[in-house]
Amino acid sequence: MRKPSDEISLDPRDWDAFSRAAHTALDDAIEFLRTVDQRPVWQPPPESLRTSTNDAVPTLETSFEEVYAEFKNTILPYATGNTHPRFFGWVHGAGLAGGIVAEMLAATMNSNCGGRDHGAIYIEKEVVNWCKELFGFPVESSGLLVSGTSMANLIGLGVARNSRAEANIRMHGLKNHARTLVSYTSAEAHESVVRAIEILGLGAASLRKIPVRADFAIDVEVLRNAITEDRRAGMEPFCVVGSAGTVNTGAIDPLDQLSSLCVAENLWFHVDGAFGALACLSDSLRSRLTGIERADSLAFDFHKWAQIQYDAGCILVRRGDLHRAAYSMRPSYLHNLGRGLASGENWPCEFGPELSRSFRALKIWFAFKEHGIRKIGHIIEQNCEQAQYLKHRIAREPNLELLAPVSLNIVCFGFRQPGLEAVESDKLNEDIVADLQELGVAAPSTTRVEGRVAIRVNITNHRTRTADLNVLIDAVLSAGRARTAAGISPER
Amino acid sequence: MRKPSDEISLDPRDWDAFSRAAHTALDDAIEFLRTVDQRPVWQPPPESLRTSTNDAVPTLETSFEEVYAEFKNTILPYATGNTHPRFFGWVHGAGLAGGIVAEMLAATMNSNCGGRDHGAIYIEKEVVNWCKELFGFPVESSGLLVSGTSMANLIGLGVARNSRAEANIRMHGLKNHARTLVSYTSAEAHESVVRAIEILGLGAASLRKIPVRADFAIDVEVLRNAITEDRRAGMEPFCVVGSAGTVNTGAIDPLDQLSSLCVAENLWFHVDGAFGALACLSDSLRSRLTGIERADSLAFDFHKWAQIQYDAGCILVRRGDLHRAAYSMRPSYLHNLGRGLASGENWPCEFGPELSRSFRALKIWFAFKEHGIRKIGHIIEQNCEQAQYLKHRIAREPNLELLAPVSLNIVCFGFRQPGLEAVESDKLNEDIVADLQELGVAAPSTTRVEGRVAIRVNITNHRTRTADLNVLIDAVLSAGRARTAAGISPER
Repeated sequence: MRKPSDEISLDPRDWDAFSRAAHTALDDAIEFLRTVDQRPVWQPPPESLRTSTNDAVPTLETSFEEVYAEFKNTILPYATGNTHPRFFGWVHGAGLAGGIVAEMLAATMNSNCGGRDHGAIYIEKEVVNWCKELFGFPVESSGLLVSGTSMANLIGLGVARNSRAEANIRMHGLKNHARTLVSYTSAEAHESVVRAIEILGLGAASLRKIPVRADFAIDVEVLRNAITEDRRAGMEPFCVVGSAGTVNTGAIDPLDQLSSLCVAENLWFHVDGAFGALACLSDSLRSRLTGIERADSLAFDFHKWAQIQYDAGCILVRRGDLHRAAYSMRPSYLHNLGRGLASGENWPCEFGPELSRSFRALKIWFAFKEHGIRKIGHIIEQNCEQAQYLKHRIAREPNLELLAPVSLNIVCFGFRQPGLEAVESDKLNEDIVADLQELGVAAPSTTRVEGRVAIRVNITNHRTRTADLNVLIDAVLSAGRARTAAGISPER
Repeated sequence: MRKPSDEISLDPRDWDAFSRAAHTALDDAIEFLRTVDQRPVWQPPPESLRTSTNDAVPTLETSFEEVYAEFKNTILPYATGNTHPRFFGWVHGAGLAGGIVAEMLAATMNSNCGGRDHGAIYIEKEVVNWCKELFGFPVESSGLLVSGTSMANLIGLGVARNSRAEANIRMHGLKNHARTLVSYTSAEAHESVVRAIEILGLGAASLRKIPVRADFAIDVEVLRNAITEDRRAGMEPFCVVGSAGTVNTGAIDPLDQLSSLCVAENLWFHVDGAFGALACLSDSLRSRLTGIERADSLAFDFHKWAQIQYDAGCILVRRGDLHRAAYSMRPSYLHNLGRGLASGENWPCEFGPELSRSFRALKIWFAFKEHGIRKIGHIIEQNCEQAQYLKHRIAREPNLELLAPVSLNIVCFGFRQPGLEAVESDKLNEDIVADLQELGVAAPSTTRVEGRVAIRVNITNHRTRTADLNVLIDAVLSAGRARTAAGISPER
């Protein structure tokens, strides 16, 4: 047995040297954010980074300074790119300067937010209460911060499933449930809904993908008929998932109608509001979400339109008692002593699958305190106005064509070249997007709208200016013309 | 529509002022860690913090400096306490100084690690490959970083469920599955296993809790008989969950025997190695885990014995193809263009429920590079030696009694007072633990061992010295004697 004098720790041997290195890293980090628009949006990771995945696990010590230097040279330049004003891919927020400090401070406290009685628990509760306030949820509702809407959908649909009154699904599972549980969402809903249904053991086939109308929102009459038919066929409808901002086009389902239908049919009403829900922070957009306050559960993200650093999402459940009943479990080693560190009621681990949980609430608390929801709401409006600007700019360009209505902040369009077959046109537009990314000039993404490849521009970016959209359009036109002048590119 | 000149962002108006505030925060953070042993382990959050949960959502802006000052005064002093050398509660790691920089840098890059082709993806792949190397997993295995073992258990058992050869459970669900799927674990297994089984729709009743032997490890013969009986009764056994370090006592199931049994019975072998798995970093402890390299899936945490900041866990799956088949989903908006940002194979979102994922790998990469696995392994050995020291110290104290064998780093004991009824003794020991926490002198937790309340000391703490254990024992004796001298405390 080693002598106490031989005991070691992993703390710095020289705190001053560590402090100097840490301050250098902080300077670099701030400079990275301050000058982000002077760099390419994205650049491909070099071969050396790709092959470093095969490096052996490090056995011996290295100085912190050396490790930091390796990070700075080989990792930092190859970020996803969403901090850049011309990142328009998928639905990524751009992050906040204050967020880097908040994450550092959360790491300093190193709290485990699974439960117990300590500061972080109250900050998470405060943030969840803010969300209840924002969405008009009642005081008896509950909430939990999670990595994002994929997890939030899983948790919300889990409550829906476990809350079927006539059964104890937690105990007895689905095999012994009398009838097949079926659920409904639109054909434009996010795939995380399908994945949640699969994980919960319900089977993807039990989720009915209801067609959408011309505005890409769910057709409520078709939905109503589907429920009736399923009941007639002996199925057990249990849940409708509405979308507040679909991933392809930003469409918002008629939430008020869906809620009324769910009340009439005694179904759980879950809303996937991944990015669109936070449009409630805007006075001019809020009315588009009418009905969201009637949801039984609501899933949304902070790392999208609230610009919080990755990752940060939330699930709210109207009836906190059902939420807790779906997941709560307090084994003997988590016994509440009534005082001391192991006290407090309604531990976060009773409301979802995770027992180990970082202090995710802090970065949200910091951002909402520093910026206030009014300013965040202004950014959301600004992005929607920028999308309208882009729509009009596209309408003026003979080589461009709008491919879907612009509901919020997502613009789907294509480069049009007369005489091209559909498959050639699809490939051309994919190539244009990849060209722009590789040039580092802008990063839109692609999707398919009614079967056709679209250049998809999503603006959930507080750094984007109208000038950036002009750079984007000019680059699309230039890439498109270069490719069509040269004939359709053969490489792939 | 607003004019481009009116466009705003959430970036600092004055980067220099922000930089000054951020550097102050960093100084405070480093000082917090450097002087952690000079403060109480834990102190109760004051009433003002508890009631701040009802504060209205902030509408207007506040300066970053003001928000930081509020954090420093009202939140920072009330951490969980696990950074302190005398935190012995539950199984929390103590965190690393370098981790606060790594988290700051991850927040700077703000990468979304759901997929695509950028630096963070390769660092996660590198970290996962290190884990495959550490546990002897084959090259075709797969892995994913997650919040912790609760999530990792859910994902691993999800693969086990979805891999049943004769069915397509992802598509058709459990209701239509021919027979009831049943699984097995020990009575000492972690409750996250139960919760995973519940979420997956299998029902807690389908998980057989097999009794343990005197060493708190699963009784393999009882398990074998249970499988046979279930088959006879028309059930479909599909999975055995072994524990590498149980939460109550640190017991390790006979993994090699369990693996052989699973091969013979054609069952999936999942290992919950939350904290114990990383004992593989120690040359002297590694042999205790023999068989772990044969697991079909392995769940473990970095934020426990590897001291990584919360949260950080991992799931490894021996057959990467089955892992991917259980979760992969690539809708049109995530189409791989073959080049540019949307390229790369085996996106992380294809291996679990999350599409939004922070750059969790960076803090692990930093820690393994800086400290090397040999030194982390020394800390693990040191903690186990400290547990042995504690055991011997307890044996020498007439008022103390060991309540379970010390397998690794967990010591369960009680303050013994002749003449007390069991219920009085239980209450006395709970009171002692709460006394110590409220005094701030040390933070053990409680659990029940064979029905009796135990003072549970878990040492997964690189800052703990033998001297801290003496402080703990002295404080337990002092609190116990004070309470028994005064008569059993009436308050609760």
